[in-house]
Amino acid sequence: MGTLSNLHTGSGYQAWLGYRQLLPGDRYDQYADYSRIHVTEKDAVIQTAVSELIYGLEGILGVKPEIVAQEKHVIAIGTFGNNPVVDRIVTPEKIARIGQEGYVIITDKENACVAVGATSSNGVIYGTFHLLRLLSTGSDINELDIVENPINRLRMINQWDNMDGSVERGYAGESIFFKDNLIVEDHDRIRDYARMLASAGLNGIVINNVNVHKVESKLITEFLPEVAKLAAIFRKYAIKLFLSVNYASPIEIGGLTTADPLDSDVRQWWRDKTADVYAVIPDFGGYLVKADSENRPGPFTYDRDHADGSNMLAEALEPFGGMVIWRCFVYNCKQDWRDRKTDRARAAYDHFKPLDGRFKDNVILQIKNGPMDFQVREPVSPLLGAMPSTNQVLEFQIAQEYTGQQRHLFYLIPHWKEILDFESYTKGNGSTIKRIASGEVHGNRLAGIAAVSNIGNDMNWTGHLLAQANLYGYGRLIWNPDLTSEHIAEEWIKLTFGNNANIIHVIKNMLLSSPAIYESYTAPLGVGFMVTPHTHYGPDVDGYEYAKWGTYHYADWHGIGVDRTLATGTGYTSQYNSPNFERYESLAHCPDELLLFFHHVPYTHVLQSGKTVIQHIYDTHFEGVEKAEQLVSQWDSLAGTMDEVLHKQVAVRIEEQVEHAKEWRDRINTYFYRKSGIADKSERLIYS
Amino acid sequence: MGTLSNLHTGSGYQAWLGYRQLLPGDRYDQYADYSRIHVTEKDAVIQTAVSELIYGLEGILGVKPEIVAQEKHVIAIGTFGNNPVVDRIVTPEKIARIGQEGYVIITDKENACVAVGATSSNGVIYGTFHLLRLLSTGSDINELDIVENPINRLRMINQWDNMDGSVERGYAGESIFFKDNLIVEDHDRIRDYARMLASAGLNGIVINNVNVHKVESKLITEFLPEVAKLAAIFRKYAIKLFLSVNYASPIEIGGLTTADPLDSDVRQWWRDKTADVYAVIPDFGGYLVKADSENRPGPFTYDRDHADGSNMLAEALEPFGGMVIWRCFVYNCKQDWRDRKTDRARAAYDHFKPLDGRFKDNVILQIKNGPMDFQVREPVSPLLGAMPSTNQVLEFQIAQEYTGQQRHLFYLIPHWKEILDFESYTKGNGSTIKRIASGEVHGNRLAGIAAVSNIGNDMNWTGHLLAQANLYGYGRLIWNPDLTSEHIAEEWIKLTFGNNANIIHVIKNMLLSSPAIYESYTAPLGVGFMVTPHTHYGPDVDGYEYAKWGTYHYADWHGIGVDRTLATGTGYTSQYNSPNFERYESLAHCPDELLLFFHHVPYTHVLQSGKTVIQHIYDTHFEGVEKAEQLVSQWDSLAGTMDEVLHKQVAVRIEEQVEHAKEWRDRINTYFYRKSGIADKSERLIYS
Repeated sequence: MGTLSNLHTGSGYQAWLGYRQLLPGDRYDQYADYSRIHVTEKDAVIQTAVSELIYGLEGILGVKPEIVAQEKHVIAIGTFGNNPVVDRIVTPEKIARIGQEGYVIITDKENACVAVGATSSNGVIYGTFHLLRLLSTGSDINELDIVENPINRLRMINQWDNMDGSVERGYAGESIFFKDNLIVEDHDRIRDYARMLASAGLNGIVINNVNVHKVESKLITEFLPEVAKLAAIFRKYAIKLFLSVNYASPIEIGGLTTADPLDSDVRQWWRDKTADVYAVIPDFGGYLVKADSENRPGPFTYDRDHADGSNMLAEALEPFGGMVIWRCFVYNCKQDWRDRKTDRARAAYDHFKPLDGRFKDNVILQIKNGPMDFQVREPVSPLLGAMPSTNQVLEFQIAQEYTGQQRHLFYLIPHWKEILDFESYTKGNGSTIKRIASGEVHGNRLAGIAAVSNIGNDMNWTGHLLAQANLYGYGRLIWNPDLTSEHIAEEWIKLTFGNNANIIHVIKNMLLSSPAIYESYTAPLGVGFMVTPHTHYGPDVDGYEYAKWGTYHYADWHGIGVDRTLATGTGYTSQYNSPNFERYESLAHCPDELLLFFHHVPYTHVLQSGKTVIQHIYDTHFEGVEKAEQLVSQWDSLAGTMDEVLHKQVAVRIEEQVEHAKEWRDRINTYFYRKSGIADKSERLIYS
Repeated sequence: MGTLSNLHTGSGYQAWLGYRQLLPGDRYDQYADYSRIHVTEKDAVIQTAVSELIYGLEGILGVKPEIVAQEKHVIAIGTFGNNPVVDRIVTPEKIARIGQEGYVIITDKENACVAVGATSSNGVIYGTFHLLRLLSTGSDINELDIVENPINRLRMINQWDNMDGSVERGYAGESIFFKDNLIVEDHDRIRDYARMLASAGLNGIVINNVNVHKVESKLITEFLPEVAKLAAIFRKYAIKLFLSVNYASPIEIGGLTTADPLDSDVRQWWRDKTADVYAVIPDFGGYLVKADSENRPGPFTYDRDHADGSNMLAEALEPFGGMVIWRCFVYNCKQDWRDRKTDRARAAYDHFKPLDGRFKDNVILQIKNGPMDFQVREPVSPLLGAMPSTNQVLEFQIAQEYTGQQRHLFYLIPHWKEILDFESYTKGNGSTIKRIASGEVHGNRLAGIAAVSNIGNDMNWTGHLLAQANLYGYGRLIWNPDLTSEHIAEEWIKLTFGNNANIIHVIKNMLLSSPAIYESYTAPLGVGFMVTPHTHYGPDVDGYEYAKWGTYHYADWHGIGVDRTLATGTGYTSQYNSPNFERYESLAHCPDELLLFFHHVPYTHVLQSGKTVIQHIYDTHFEGVEKAEQLVSQWDSLAGTMDEVLHKQVAVRIEEQVEHAKEWRDRINTYFYRKSGIADKSERLIYS
């Protein structure tokens, strides 16, 4: 049996798996009554669950639990039909409700047993982590009667880690997977990451960046034995390993002269390499591919399309049950800013929608939540749900590329929930994004959600300690998109900081208010970007205005915004179903927060809020800083009530946030004052 | 005797030392008559001159010249009193006119002798290169009667080469001096650079970047034996080697805890290290120092000033005759853009002027030509000449950081001549910058001009072949600032491309028109910058507008420019002597080309040209592109009349220039149209 004895204990390292010891008292006594473990199976995943249970119980009770044969006063974990305690407690009616990854947790109070039962060992580990969550948050376990199944089948994490050790858009140190163009030799930290992911309910990981350079291309060849070791680590936590591959691999590392997907040598090369992968990783998940996107190679080079390109890889993976995840982040990244016809927002839909029905059954298209690129505010991608005959996975970004880079507080769960709850009308009422992502709307075989990780080798994983809530919350939310932001926040706070009511109250308040605060002092009314080129940190209003990336705001002396209407603009609005189309198309009905995404309006245009655009800009930017300042005082109020080092970690970040929010406020306000010449009605200080 | 047999012959490598073979004919016969060499001295520099003479004559005549004892039909080179032919031909009256580095070239037609005579061997090499220039351009040598002395004593080149092989602001490849944190082992290319510099009349080189990192700090310790080898190469070409040093060296490599210039251990450390340097390089030039500038360490850390800092180093160098060159590029590089009081333009004067008289005799202050940073257009630095009791050297930049990065054609000689001819009035009429730089106005012992090199390991040295004219021309101009731009251009063209009249005409025209063309499509009316941050290539109007570098234009809906007047602005104008002060202070009299440097004006302000500011911007930007397009056709007209590879090299650059000029035009025009809302009177296409 594995042990978790080599876990780091540095500040924040334990994240939500810290398992604070309970002081003897009510719950302590209650838990102690159940604190032996009954397990019969030797399966590696179940043994991992046992290790976790031992580790957690020892932390909470201060005593290492025994594994016993007795059938009372135990926590019994196992699959149905294999554990007498589980089988005694769990009724067939319950079992019938449990899917492949689901579980039940039921208390037999009379015998002081809790049964964690599942169809598969994977379900057992999720159920075990669920039980540990209950214990760690001091819940009453005398009456448990829980049935859980994940709503999304694919629950993926994408690492944007490069083998040189850097992390693209990484804000928490270097890669924990790679260093100096090798896979790291010490796997402890990777194991610890695996348990964090599993505890949050995730079941798949792509360990390398979607931008695959030459060295990472060799993960499926030269580095394969080392990759297999990583797969084994994740396997124990019920997580499948995937790899990002380089579409040009047949040329770059295969010695072929082409990567044409219809070329028989190319097809054979991929079949051979894929067979090699499965020979050492039998449960390998598949390939993630960024092709013909931002200068990456792809089928376009050979006059083939995305269906040709992905189907070729799918064919190689099919015999082994693997899948191709094909990203839809495809647009013209060499746009001329003078060109007002091309609209990057249109690109994914225009590229992929016509291909619906042409993809193989084991191809899945990965679609970013918005049409641009993980902006603080943009509409939901109209491609989501628009291809009924094609598998889709929704892509989020936990890494805070455009949302403050883990220096600003931005709790992403409410942001994602807005997207998940969006009604697309793609198949009438109820076609919400969450039901599309889960595959329910179109009945997809493969479906789910992926997200770019926010971790690195910083001791606390995420740089900003409170950004751990986004990793944890991501897993919890995609397990069950109906969980509320409040619920997830509270759960994470308790697990991380304990059950102090004031701490919970203050941090929950901070988390929940954070997205609106950040949005208010950055780019206004859905216009997006206005960030420093390349780094994407901090304000630069014209930073992308004359660039080739298709990200413009068109501010002039008179007004601002992008006319994406069908009537007079790029026609992007027409990619939405009615009545979304009409709502976005109409200046009168377009939601304020997306106004500048869809319309070019004068600064004097009056919003639905009753304010002019220019006054809205000034007001939100002044208010945003004021609210950021309140975050400081809220956090300061917790000093002395929690671990000092953790408190300091966050305090430093929030102070930086306030200073930086002022920079945003002043640059945005000055920019628009200089451009419009319109004074602030409240006569606050705007630098001229 | 050295040979030059291992010279590369790749395209452009020979630069202006190609020595095309003359076809037999008049000049051939004339030169052949003189084509033996009479030399008596074994001095290394004179032997270098002999090698160069042999190499050049062999190139021109196709026959290797003999060294002979005879005293007729010879070119005699040597120092006065040591060569019977020289002594026979050169009169004492002539000798009296020759300074330390000067020379005479006199023909004794009767005996078919040309004498190149000098006081020092250094003068001999300059005279020899002068004679070779005459031969290479097909001049009549039957009646030579030349007396030359350099106007500037210090004629320096600054390499901004880093030991990792990169060149800061290098646009022609990697360093020829350093690679992989070592000094290169193959010295051929360095020798070839030395001959180029000597042939252009230069006498000093700083081989490493003013930004000295830890590894380059060791050039005076660990790498000293290798540095000595480089010094020996340059010594043969009469060039003194200098090093940039790190002010924090006593800490970083000396193991001390301070670099305080008044600390006795620090002083001793520098004395010891300097003695070590002179032990192996007896003619070492001295130290170049960038201190307390752009985050470099300096005396400010210890509450000392620039005089304390430089005098300490000067003391260490004094016993050996070395000097400290102390850069005045000191300003607040962490300025808040909201702060309208601080003016970077004021900084050098404000920092240094009060210290006049406090510097030791072997300290020399190096002052950039303008108050900002090598902009296409800025006023002349008011610090030049403002410190009568302090040695100064004027700093130019041959590297085209802000002048097109050797992708755009920009002949710098006219640009520099405007500066040199500027009347500062610092000591009444005639206080031109060239007379200040030479030391004539204030009678400085040490004086001269330095410039940042534009070369790298590109085969043709400068990337853009025509940028060789700037390196050559720099040397020629600072030898004699009264040479015209036309003269230097013609000389360089003949040496590089031969004597074809049409080639000379076309290229001269291109060179002479190039500065105005570049200026016309970039930042208007002296406002400066508007370039992409960091790279400084290409337009980004607001790129530095909200940055910390003190480089702002303050464009708003109403107008643009920086008010630097005494009456209402930063008071920078008051750093100028009358009547320059009054001229710049006055909106009516300020020259158009500097208007926005000194004044903030409405777009509708009428220039002395009769145009409004906004219309001037539009007009110059449209015209600039048209003229850049004419460069293409001018160059195209030379196809077939010169080496094809050289022609192609330049053609590619000029085509890129036109495309990029359009980007400048459109971005600048659109920016100002969007900001002002004022249409182009000529209704040309401005993207909205």
